[in-house]
Formats: sequence, C-alpha cells, structure tokens
Amino acid sequence: MHNFTFSNPTKIVFGDGQIATIGREIDNQHHVLLMYGGGSIKKNGVYQQVIDSLKEHKITEFSGVEPNPSIETLSKAITLAKQENIDYILAVGGGSVIDGAKLVAAGVKYEGDAWDILAKGAKVRSALPLSCILTLPATGTESNGNSVITKRSTQEKLPFSSPLVYPRVAVLDPSVTFSLPERQVANGVVDAFVHTMEQYLTYDVNAPVQDRFAEGLLSTLIEEGPKALSDPSNYDVRANIMWAATMALNGLIGVGVPQDWATHAIGHEITALHGLDHAQTLAIVLPSLMQHKRDKKAAKLVQYGRRVWGIESASDEEVIDQAITKTAAFFEQMGVPTKLSGYGIAADAIDGLVAQMEKHKLHAIGEHKDINPEVARKILEDAA
Amino acid sequence: MHNFTFSNPTKIVFGDGQIATIGREIDNQHHVLLMYGGGSIKKNGVYQQVIDSLKEHKITEFSGVEPNPSIETLSKAITLAKQENIDYILAVGGGSVIDGAKLVAAGVKYEGDAWDILAKGAKVRSALPLSCILTLPATGTESNGNSVITKRSTQEKLPFSSPLVYPRVAVLDPSVTFSLPERQVANGVVDAFVHTMEQYLTYDVNAPVQDRFAEGLLSTLIEEGPKALSDPSNYDVRANIMWAATMALNGLIGVGVPQDWATHAIGHEITALHGLDHAQTLAIVLPSLMQHKRDKKAAKLVQYGRRVWGIESASDEEVIDQAITKTAAFFEQMGVPTKLSGYGIAADAIDGLVAQMEKHKLHAIGEHKDINPEVARKILEDAA
Repeated sequence: MHNFTFSNPTKIVFGDGQIATIGREIDNQHHVLLMYGGGSIKKNGVYQQVIDSLKEHKITEFSGVEPNPSIETLSKAITLAKQENIDYILAVGGGSVIDGAKLVAAGVKYEGDAWDILAKGAKVRSALPLSCILTLPATGTESNGNSVITKRSTQEKLPFSSPLVYPRVAVLDPSVTFSLPERQVANGVVDAFVHTMEQYLTYDVNAPVQDRFAEGLLSTLIEEGPKALSDPSNYDVRANIMWAATMALNGLIGVGVPQDWATHAIGHEITALHGLDHAQTLAIVLPSLMQHKRDKKAAKLVQYGRRVWGIESASDEEVIDQAITKTAAFFEQMGVPTKLSGYGIAADAIDGLVAQMEKHKLHAIGEHKDINPEVARKILEDAA
Repeated sequence: MHNFTFSNPTKIVFGDGQIATIGREIDNQHHVLLMYGGGSIKKNGVYQQVIDSLKEHKITEFSGVEPNPSIETLSKAITLAKQENIDYILAVGGGSVIDGAKLVAAGVKYEGDAWDILAKGAKVRSALPLSCILTLPATGTESNGNSVITKRSTQEKLPFSSPLVYPRVAVLDPSVTFSLPERQVANGVVDAFVHTMEQYLTYDVNAPVQDRFAEGLLSTLIEEGPKALSDPSNYDVRANIMWAATMALNGLIGVGVPQDWATHAIGHEITALHGLDHAQTLAIVLPSLMQHKRDKKAAKLVQYGRRVWGIESASDEEVIDQAITKTAAFFEQMGVPTKLSGYGIAADAIDGLVAQMEKHKLHAIGEHKDINPEVARKILEDAA
C-alpha cells in the first residue's frame, strides 16, 4: 500500500424524508443562494420540501444551471451572489448543479475572473460554505472537492479541486430518484461503476481493504442496477445505488492505491465532439481498454472476474475473457450501448477523436502513463 | 436500509515516515500537551520522531496514562493543562492514551468535575483540539468520537461520546507496530474483528454496501492477522491490519444497519472482575453468542459463512456450524483462547459475572434487546 492522506468532512444525511432536516443544518442567520437546474425539482416535490424547511432563512434563487454547467451561466450566479451578499450556497440537483455551485462558492471569494480557477489553476483560498441536496446518484460530487466546468465559447471543459468546496452537508433521499428518467438511472449506475473500476483495476499494491471495498461496490451496482430498471419504485434498490455511488468517489476506495482514469480521459473527447452522455462514453471505452491492457492488468482482472463475477473457469485467460464480456453485457443490460456504432458514430470519426487527444496533449495517460493517442486509436477501433 | 447521519472529520495521514509530518499539521502558535503512556514510545523511536517534528512548538509532557485510563490520572492532566494554558492535545499511543486524551480535551473546557461527563452524561459543549499518533491498531478511537474511562476508586468503567473529540489529525505509521508484543498484535486483530461483527452479524436490512465492506474487513483480518504473527516485519501486513482496524470503528460500516454490541457488554464484566484483556473477553463471548443466537441471526450467519469463510456445504445449518467453529479457531490461531478455562477461570465464576450484569441493569442487550443476565449465563456456561 502506498502512503496516503485521507480527509472527508462532508456530513451525510441519508434517507427517506431527510430533506426536511436541511433547515436545521444551516444557521438561519445565513442568506442562502438556492441553486438548481431546469425545474425538475418543482415537478417531483423536492423544491417545495426545501422551501418548507428553509422557511426561517433568507433565500435568493438561481435556477437554470445546465447539464455540463458553463462558466457563462455560473458567472451570472457569482455576480448575483456578490450583489445580494449571499453567504451560504445550497445546491439542489445532480452532479451538474453541485459542480456549478462549487465554482460559485469559490468564485464569490475570488478577486478576478472565476474562470482563472480552472484555466490558470488559480488557488482557491476561500469559499462560501456550501451544502447540497442530491437528486441523481452518479458522480460522487456530493461528498468530494471536485468540480468540472465548461466554457461554451471555447468548448473547453476543465476540472478544479479544493478542500474548501466539499459540501458541508449532503442530503441523500433515495425516494427522490423514483422520478428520474430510466436513462439517467442507467447512466448513474454506469458512472459509479466506472469510477470504482478506475481506482481498482490497476496493478496490485497489496491493499486488500481497498480492493474488497471496491469489489463490494461493483457487486452491489451489478445486483441493484438492473433492479432499478425492472422495479423502479423499490426504495432499498434506490438507496443501495445512491450509497454505492457516493462511496465510489468520496476518496475512500482510492487511498493508497494506483489509479487509472484513462477511460475517463478518452471518454471526455467523445462527449466533446459527439455530445454523448458521460456514462455512455465510459461504457464504450472501458471494455475495449480492459482488452488492450489485459496483460498489465492481468492479476487484478483475474481477481475481478473471480470475486465480482464468480467466474470459476480453470485458466486465468479464460477468466479475463469472460470478465470483459460480462462487464460489457452489464452495461448493455442497463440500456447503455458499448460500441460507437450503438450511438450512430461511424469508425471514420476516430481520426477526429485521436486528433483531439493530440491537441489536449494526452500523451501519457493511465496507471502506467503508456496510453497515447495512437493506443487510444486502437482502443476506439475495437469499440467501433 | 435505515435512515442515518454520517460524519467523520478526522484527517488520516497514513504510512511509513508520516510521523514527521505532525509538526506541519499543528499550528506552531499552539501550546501542545503531549500525552503518552508508560514509555514504550521512547524505546521504539516514536517519541523522538514526534519531538523532532514539533521542534517549533511549545510542548508540555504528560506521561503515565495507563491501560484502561483512569479519571484519577487524567484529572492530573486536566489540572496541568489548565495551569499551563494548554490549547492543543497530541496523544501518542494506543487506544488508552487516545481515549484518555479525549477526556482531557473535554475536561479542560468543562466547569466542574470531568467525571460528570461520564457519570452524569454532562454534555460536552467545548473541547480543546486533539490529534493523535496511533501506535497500536485495535480500537478505532483514532478516528471516532468515543472514549472509555475507568474510575479506579469505585471500579466503574464508563463511556462518553462527542463529535467535539474526534481527532483532527490521526497519524498511522504501520512500521511503529513492528515492536509490539505478540499478545497486543493478536488482541488488536481480535478487537477489530469483533467490532466489525457487532455491526454486521445482525438481522438483515438489505444494505449490501455495508455488508460487503464489513465482509472485506473480516476477510482481511483473517488473512493478515496470522501473518502478523508468523512474519512480524512484513510492512504490508501491518498496514492492512492498521487500516482495517480504523475502518472497523470509524462509523462507516455501521451506517443504516442494526448493531448488536452484546458481546462487548458481557465481555466488559469479565474484564472488570477477572482483569482479562478486552479482546480476550470478546474471543470468549462471541462464538458462544453466535451459537445461542443462531436462529435470529441465521440469514446473516449463512451469508458470513459462505462469503467470508467460503463454506460450500449444502445445508444452511451446516454452514452456520462451520462458521462458528472457524471463527473460534481463528481466535485460537491468533493465540487468544475462546473459553474461560483457557484463562484459568472456573465455571463457578459465572454466578459473579451474572450478578454484575444484574447490578449494571443489563436486562435488554443485543440487536433484539433479548439478552438478559440469564441468557448471558447460558452463553457463558457454553464458553466455560
């Protein structure tokens, strides 16, 4: 096991009816900026629960945070927050709203253009306190310090991280996910699954606690994901997926172990050029990347196949073959195609994706930094 | 899954050489009370590493915190801390030193006798900041808000909990455990194992993430525990045990699930009357309690047997039989006897233990609150 530092200060308030507690979690002396997206929270009742709980608080609303939140939109929120002397942010929504709220929390305290935090890596030295009510389990942003923001004018999509933007409180009520569209449920399961794999499917460093925690999340998502589609009003299924998605990217399973993230890096280019959902791109890239890296990842692939999928075949190579096949079949079972063609993208689009990787200088990604644009070309060709 | 709230603010700094970082973690404007035990940290070099790292800090030392730390000793530390205007506590040691430091942190800020916090449940409204350097993996106190303190004059042993006494920083360097006596290593493994079981081996509430995390800790302790005895200078083994012990009682695996703790409650009486180590008492009680509660815990016992021990027998009853046998055999393999007779305690001592449970009003313990002193008598008789 490698040396590590781990800290996660987010308080999780989990369960049916817990949104009603948010008013107690936030001191009512605060002037709260209530941020949300396109209005689904008004249809599913979440908005009213939040308003009811915050009835003793001064609230200013900012709606319209879009999927892949943009600096153009968020700059308006920063301006509003400064004008209104906002001193607390409450994000209500999925990963995009919460990621956006993190930039607003940091941007209000930043002297200058908030885009500097992403484009120039300007250090976040202060941020407004931020809490969130999660409505879509997927990204783990409800309990980490990461955020990804898009600049529409230049088509850039950049991340930032700061310990200052961890949500203080994250309310996770699984029952609010009943009303999600099937595609978002499926995407969330695939996203959480691949987050786990990026921290697990690497060379081995003798870290059995981390391995087994990761395997526990993978097994849970494999069991519960399809049930969320076939039995969409089952509370326990939603709760187990929601908790698994949080644990998949709150930093815990990644302590002291190598990490990969090449699937994400290649996938981002597909989203940028072709507009696919983030999880769809992961479902395309991961099985092919597993195949291309089967030698260097062999020991963990065998462990994954035997422990997570229960494959009992005699030879390690057979276990790896089956493990890759079963991974892709799971994504397909969730309704998420695993080939570019499944989204109407022809093989001749691969040149453009490789060129984007060159442009973004992705010459050394993955756990061994041995994936460059030409290796990615082969991975994509096998996923055509 | 039940509703829950989870928050754990402790920053973990883990790995070989990490003690040297503690000086950076504590602002050097603080006047630090350095608390430790009987002096083993001077023999194994930990004390010098701490002093070297804190060379820019004002330090006052308080040594001599004993196993099962007493209010008599800790009151002296509280008096000293008040006299010297201490504003930060650094505990260096195992569970006893850290538990004791928690009471000092709260006691310095408490107007009145600090024993009130334990005996009268006086609320902790303020506490000095506290960090720790863990030298003995076992209790999980390095990353939770719990503490157990003894009053020698009355033979009382009482717990308190407060979110204000979570260590700010916990340094875990597995290499410092190389010099531990075999008995303390074994006790630590058994203690962490039973902490996990108390949160896992209950009726089922459909919480697969929590179940699998617990199973991962149990499997790791079963694999690594014996290696710590047979290969005592293996760093990875020590690291895996140390991380498993922290995860076993930092609150995570217990979220949203029933908990039992009857094994601990009965075990405490054995320590109180016969002076056995805490872990020794757990090793005596748990296998017999599993046998007595095999019907109500049947589903989880079968899951435990199949997943943790890999038992493939046909019938559930056979799986349960073997799971109990293997659990006891594991403790014995660690050198921790699982019968009262193994410690020279005769069966006629059971009357006294039952009387103590009556005196302490332990009439409804366990997940179903169905274990009373007479049930405990049967559990102890089968462990005679």
